[in-house]
Amino acid sequence: MRILTAIDSMKGSLTSIEANQMIEDVFSSSTIQVEKIAIGDGGEGTVEAFVENCQGSFVTVACHNLLGEAIQADFGWLADEKTAIIESASTCGIQFLDFTSATHPKRTSSAGLGEMMLAAAQQGAKRIIIGLGGTGTIDGGMGVLSSLGVEFFDSNGELLQAIGGNLGKVATFSLANFTDKLGDIEIVLASDVKSPIVGETGAVKMFGEQKGLLPVEMDDYEKNMKHYSEVLLQGKSSEEGDGAAGGLGLALRAVLKARMASGFELLAEYAQLTKKIEKADLVITGEGRIDAQSLQGKVPVGISQLAKKHQLPVIAFVGSMQGEAVTFKEAGLDIVIPLVDEIMTLEQAMADAKTNLQRVAERSKDLLFLLAETLG
Amino acid sequence: MRILTAIDSMKGSLTSIEANQMIEDVFSSSTIQVEKIAIGDGGEGTVEAFVENCQGSFVTVACHNLLGEAIQADFGWLADEKTAIIESASTCGIQFLDFTSATHPKRTSSAGLGEMMLAAAQQGAKRIIIGLGGTGTIDGGMGVLSSLGVEFFDSNGELLQAIGGNLGKVATFSLANFTDKLGDIEIVLASDVKSPIVGETGAVKMFGEQKGLLPVEMDDYEKNMKHYSEVLLQGKSSEEGDGAAGGLGLALRAVLKARMASGFELLAEYAQLTKKIEKADLVITGEGRIDAQSLQGKVPVGISQLAKKHQLPVIAFVGSMQGEAVTFKEAGLDIVIPLVDEIMTLEQAMADAKTNLQRVAERSKDLLFLLAETLG
Repeated sequence: MRILTAIDSMKGSLTSIEANQMIEDVFSSSTIQVEKIAIGDGGEGTVEAFVENCQGSFVTVACHNLLGEAIQADFGWLADEKTAIIESASTCGIQFLDFTSATHPKRTSSAGLGEMMLAAAQQGAKRIIIGLGGTGTIDGGMGVLSSLGVEFFDSNGELLQAIGGNLGKVATFSLANFTDKLGDIEIVLASDVKSPIVGETGAVKMFGEQKGLLPVEMDDYEKNMKHYSEVLLQGKSSEEGDGAAGGLGLALRAVLKARMASGFELLAEYAQLTKKIEKADLVITGEGRIDAQSLQGKVPVGISQLAKKHQLPVIAFVGSMQGEAVTFKEAGLDIVIPLVDEIMTLEQAMADAKTNLQRVAERSKDLLFLLAETLG
Repeated sequence: MRILTAIDSMKGSLTSIEANQMIEDVFSSSTIQVEKIAIGDGGEGTVEAFVENCQGSFVTVACHNLLGEAIQADFGWLADEKTAIIESASTCGIQFLDFTSATHPKRTSSAGLGEMMLAAAQQGAKRIIIGLGGTGTIDGGMGVLSSLGVEFFDSNGELLQAIGGNLGKVATFSLANFTDKLGDIEIVLASDVKSPIVGETGAVKMFGEQKGLLPVEMDDYEKNMKHYSEVLLQGKSSEEGDGAAGGLGLALRAVLKARMASGFELLAEYAQLTKKIEKADLVITGEGRIDAQSLQGKVPVGISQLAKKHQLPVIAFVGSMQGEAVTFKEAGLDIVIPLVDEIMTLEQAMADAKTNLQRVAERSKDLLFLLAETLG
């Protein structure tokens, strides 16, 4: 019997790789083979997941974080596919913020992402996949563009520093010194965020507060972002996803012709998902939290639906579930199994996720095979 | 396929009958027959369980509770077996206490149990099973004996009222007026309590506080119980279980030649357990709380071990478990499944036990049968 396990990361508890490894440890036997697919949907763990699935490697780059501090960050390198995978968060991540005025969005920049992209080009990439999750910047992508040679000027023709605080001052920009190093590299953005650049669900109003914007600053920041986006778009219309990652979506799409791709789409391509599902007898997936409203666009649901096309049974291990089993069944998840199995607090559940998964997976395995003799 | 379900009650949450019914509701189908055995081990729900298992009936008796108040209480009547089942708690139960001085153990009496026994004799019983769980009395069984005609005298030859407060005053007792109504009825005590009449694990020191004895009263009460037991035993030795139910064990054994039987033993006999296990393909059991220390003597464990003799798979639904799956497996419980499957408090878990059981049982059923096609 063959089991395909593809469990998403459970934020703050387990990486996708750790969760899949636990499933292999629990289920693998002389008669059960376990195939693993690590999941990365653009957020934390995406690089590790792609490297794992494609037997890639890591390339370390000396670059700068969103505060301009010198750091080292890794991108993933898939030599066979000539593909680089970059997590924006590795340079522009919210983890660098301490939420004092020194790390206010007005002072931060996505420039480090541009440095990573140039390093990927240097490596020989024909395609760069950029995961947009987990950023702390709201600079409309001024930073990344400026690293690639785009220049932003104010109304006096003065060159502007590429930080969030200058969004409102951008009067014009120039591609005169735009790098030729990217050549015809395809840029793909891994993101499931559909936010527009401005508006209630946009880069500022939807995500600004968690990055350190004060409520009282919101309207001004939104006005500045709107102004900047109009300069950058030059009369073209904004699109869904432009608001991802503080406006990185906008900058990379409008200037670098990047295309957006869902985490599931990229996973399916790079992990040979269809081929592996065709070989499997049972699919195990899962994630940190699932509810009836969150079914759309989730990688585990995408996997389940593909499994269902091949009439495969699917079980999902989840940190928590809200909703009726029947709803999840309709989405392709035959059985959703929470990792909580005793009285515990959320903090305990998250801290003990690994042992909880082990215990619950072992019990589930026992149940799955208990009647094998009776029925076989 | 045939499933035998025999889940013990989960105190404060679910009766055995309710839990089994839920299993039938969840598992029963055109191809799955569910046979139910209700469990009663001498505590609350024992009468209902025996009546359910043997298609018996209830007989209502006008009698008195442990405070001497007139009440009506039911015993179970199994006409085919000519057996009456009485819960001591129906007349002497802790539920009648309000823990004021008015309901102090010194004032309470087990007399009501004797009234129930006489009514059972009147009904034609050849055997009376008395469940000893849940009593509030600590009268050494003076009450029940006095209802049956035993007279207790103080050192002045004065007839004593049969209440806990008079234990120390008993100088002699007389069987001169002992009832002939019990004839040769066999008295069987259903209890898993092995307490001696006195000592650290005895009727007073082990159970006194929960029945309203103050710590400061303990030594005196113990001394009085010791004195009383010596009078009653007339030089014979006390035995294991004499301390059950505030000394009912002692009184019924020493004077009425009652024998102790485990809950499992009686259940096996009256519910035709062996016969039903022989017909089953899967056994479902369970209880409120299971831990590695509590495995011995528990009815679900007894059922599991019998099931294992017949090579049957066993699963158990439990309110909570403490311990390793491997420990329970060794005790015959292949898979122990807690009813908790999300972050909840103990209070919520108990209040929602029924819906929790439904949800967890449905998920377990799905897992049990998910691979039926693949493996079948």
